[in-house]
Amino acid sequence: MRLVILGGVAAGTKAASRARRLDPEMEITVYQEEPEPSISECGLPYLLSGVVEARDDLVVRTPERFAEKGIDVLVRHRVERIDSAGKNLTVLNLNTGYAFEDTYDRLVLATGAQAVLPPIPGAELEGVFKLRFLTDTDEIGRYVEEQSPSKATIVGGGYIGLEVAENLCRLGMKVCLIEGEDRVALAYGPEVSENVEAELEANGVGVFTGEKVDEFTGEGRVRGVKFGDRELETDLVIVGVGIKPNVELAAQAGVEIGTTGAILVNRHMKTSVPDVWAAGDCVETINLVSGRPTWVPLGDTANQMGRVAGTNAATGKETLKFPGILGTGIFKVFDLGVGKTGLSEKEAEDAGFEVVSASLWAYDRAAYYPGAQKVFLKLIAERATGRLLGAESAGSGADKLTDICAAALWGRLSYPDLVNIDLAYAPPYGLALSPVIQAATILSGKFDRAREGVRASE
Amino acid sequence: MRLVILGGVAAGTKAASRARRLDPEMEITVYQEEPEPSISECGLPYLLSGVVEARDDLVVRTPERFAEKGIDVLVRHRVERIDSAGKNLTVLNLNTGYAFEDTYDRLVLATGAQAVLPPIPGAELEGVFKLRFLTDTDEIGRYVEEQSPSKATIVGGGYIGLEVAENLCRLGMKVCLIEGEDRVALAYGPEVSENVEAELEANGVGVFTGEKVDEFTGEGRVRGVKFGDRELETDLVIVGVGIKPNVELAAQAGVEIGTTGAILVNRHMKTSVPDVWAAGDCVETINLVSGRPTWVPLGDTANQMGRVAGTNAATGKETLKFPGILGTGIFKVFDLGVGKTGLSEKEAEDAGFEVVSASLWAYDRAAYYPGAQKVFLKLIAERATGRLLGAESAGSGADKLTDICAAALWGRLSYPDLVNIDLAYAPPYGLALSPVIQAATILSGKFDRAREGVRASE
Repeated sequence: MRLVILGGVAAGTKAASRARRLDPEMEITVYQEEPEPSISECGLPYLLSGVVEARDDLVVRTPERFAEKGIDVLVRHRVERIDSAGKNLTVLNLNTGYAFEDTYDRLVLATGAQAVLPPIPGAELEGVFKLRFLTDTDEIGRYVEEQSPSKATIVGGGYIGLEVAENLCRLGMKVCLIEGEDRVALAYGPEVSENVEAELEANGVGVFTGEKVDEFTGEGRVRGVKFGDRELETDLVIVGVGIKPNVELAAQAGVEIGTTGAILVNRHMKTSVPDVWAAGDCVETINLVSGRPTWVPLGDTANQMGRVAGTNAATGKETLKFPGILGTGIFKVFDLGVGKTGLSEKEAEDAGFEVVSASLWAYDRAAYYPGAQKVFLKLIAERATGRLLGAESAGSGADKLTDICAAALWGRLSYPDLVNIDLAYAPPYGLALSPVIQAATILSGKFDRAREGVRASE
Repeated sequence: MRLVILGGVAAGTKAASRARRLDPEMEITVYQEEPEPSISECGLPYLLSGVVEARDDLVVRTPERFAEKGIDVLVRHRVERIDSAGKNLTVLNLNTGYAFEDTYDRLVLATGAQAVLPPIPGAELEGVFKLRFLTDTDEIGRYVEEQSPSKATIVGGGYIGLEVAENLCRLGMKVCLIEGEDRVALAYGPEVSENVEAELEANGVGVFTGEKVDEFTGEGRVRGVKFGDRELETDLVIVGVGIKPNVELAAQAGVEIGTTGAILVNRHMKTSVPDVWAAGDCVETINLVSGRPTWVPLGDTANQMGRVAGTNAATGKETLKFPGILGTGIFKVFDLGVGKTGLSEKEAEDAGFEVVSASLWAYDRAAYYPGAQKVFLKLIAERATGRLLGAESAGSGADKLTDICAAALWGRLSYPDLVNIDLAYAPPYGLALSPVIQAATILSGKFDRAREGVRASE
């Protein structure tokens, strides 16, 4: 039995390891275009600045380590064609330039996603980069060393753009961030965006929202960026306006693509084609709050999906299920942590929910305990049922509040359930009434008033 | 309509405030023996050492503030008798020494709990204290100022004893801790106890477990403590061997006492006596995991119970329900945070569950991210169903892991549910696979192996 996995990183290598554990006899080969099969992509912004000191810190496992487990990892190999009828692959060895044929009994697609590069004039200039792979960080690092850029421009105010802004500031650069929409961190509500923008500005980052980049200028090397009526000097540009799933190979092989544009899989991570599973950034899944297809490419989810796909590919059965996701995420920008789970108010409305929400600022520990810092929490719920739909948090301990709410969403709790939830309290770690409890209590109060009286039961 | 509340602090003052909000016309009186009606008792150990700088920081609200809201708070007043048939109270004014009669239409008992002082010879010596109220901290503070004790002994290795140990060390004292059982932090499993003892010892605290104090020695003032074959010099003793609910007044009034020794209430915080509710450290409730009566006196729960009791006492109806608790708790001892929710392995076994557990040490953030520290997590589940029964954690981020598991218990999740839970991941805040996911995955693996194959479905 021969299992071939296209792509490494989180989903592909997890699928390979899991299959090996379940079936010691199976032949397992992983093909990957990038030179490192197993890296922590989420650490890349921190490698740029040296917060993460060594490149090797991000290399989780080398091909040699996989070989010890009997997993054949071929890096710098690109699969160019899948013949799903004949279970045949055409593989290009990028080192030699020669192509060869391979076969599979079972196949896992973990082809990931790639950065979107918008067609901006001048995007081909030296000094204009994306940041997606370790190789991108290598290139940026070389450029920084050789050219010592002092002014950097970031295009895009999402996770990557915001993390990169912080890390370029750490290198002493004067950083500007340009976002096409009218606020950064669009996956969040406006309160969070406002706080993120304030944090950027407090750290010297110039923030331009509602601005579309018209052109990168310079001869050979980038020297400026034009948008609106402005032209800013810049020595370095990093474009982080989004990523898209790598589905061409799958589509060509007859694998059905979902409504989000990513590969469609069932709950067992199986594609529409026999003996082909898929996992990670190239697949869509179900948002458990909205019940709709969603594509939220993140490393932790990719890992979990890889486990399910690898298990089922190894057994050839519907051994494990992947239930779907909440779209939980978190990022850090300077000293501000910003996390989210479930749907934002806008996403909930777009999904057809009638929404009620409550927001508050609280402390991350007893106000009298040294070091107490502020944290924002917003709970979003369905008006009719009280069902929790989402939460977002910014500030100290945002990771904890986000995860509490993620677990509550995972258990399909409603805000009346959260009024009396029994969380851990001691002065160094929180408030007697957690912000989660306080926000749920505010929602209960709104509900009471809406009913013109006290509610009959919580 | 006249509402009388016996006791302030978390439950009593919350009940009063909530009743006032719901019924602006109601007469509301709170009687309390201690001089401050609304203080943060959990902050007391930190006031001792000056980590919390000012006594007033712990005073949440003064009688004057309550008066502004039309709540009559009479401190230094002890209710000595309740005539529940005649709805009559006998109240002693501790300032004047005179008693008087009062009446009520509705009554809330929030009489709290008191420190247990074991009958150890010499316990009456100067320098031997308990720590329960702000007045205790005042006395200890005066003694420390006058006598400058250099050697302190703590009797009892529970929350209070452990928190006090840290805070006396901060004052420069040489501290010993004596625990009668064979390990400290008995509400936790042995792995946690071992780590707490190591943390104490690493900070210079002498730890003596399995030792019963025979005698405090000294003339007038304490100079030594005898246990086993030892006698240690000591200038200061703090006894923290437990607390017990204040139920005498309730019992005398005919209020039914539960099997735990605390006041029995229904889900609406109503006692067995008409028009009498109770809340806080004096009542028992249901442990939602075991389904059994439990008495876990903590400030956060008291607050939530007070809200329910105050609401129902104000409306006279079954307006709100209190669902019960998980027994979630957390404490800090030096640099170690230690949290728990649900049942420990032993508690689960005692409650009749057949138990399976998984433990691990992990990092609190990506191993390559600066400042990564270790954290322990143990998940306890029911073997037959996989239902999560409890969790305990020690180390950096123990508060977050405890709260994630508390929310999971609140939603009655099982460990197979937790294998794919969608938590927030970014390198500064956690691992791609949270310790919660890792421990649940270990449990799934144990389950797989127990079934000699892969489980049919997660």
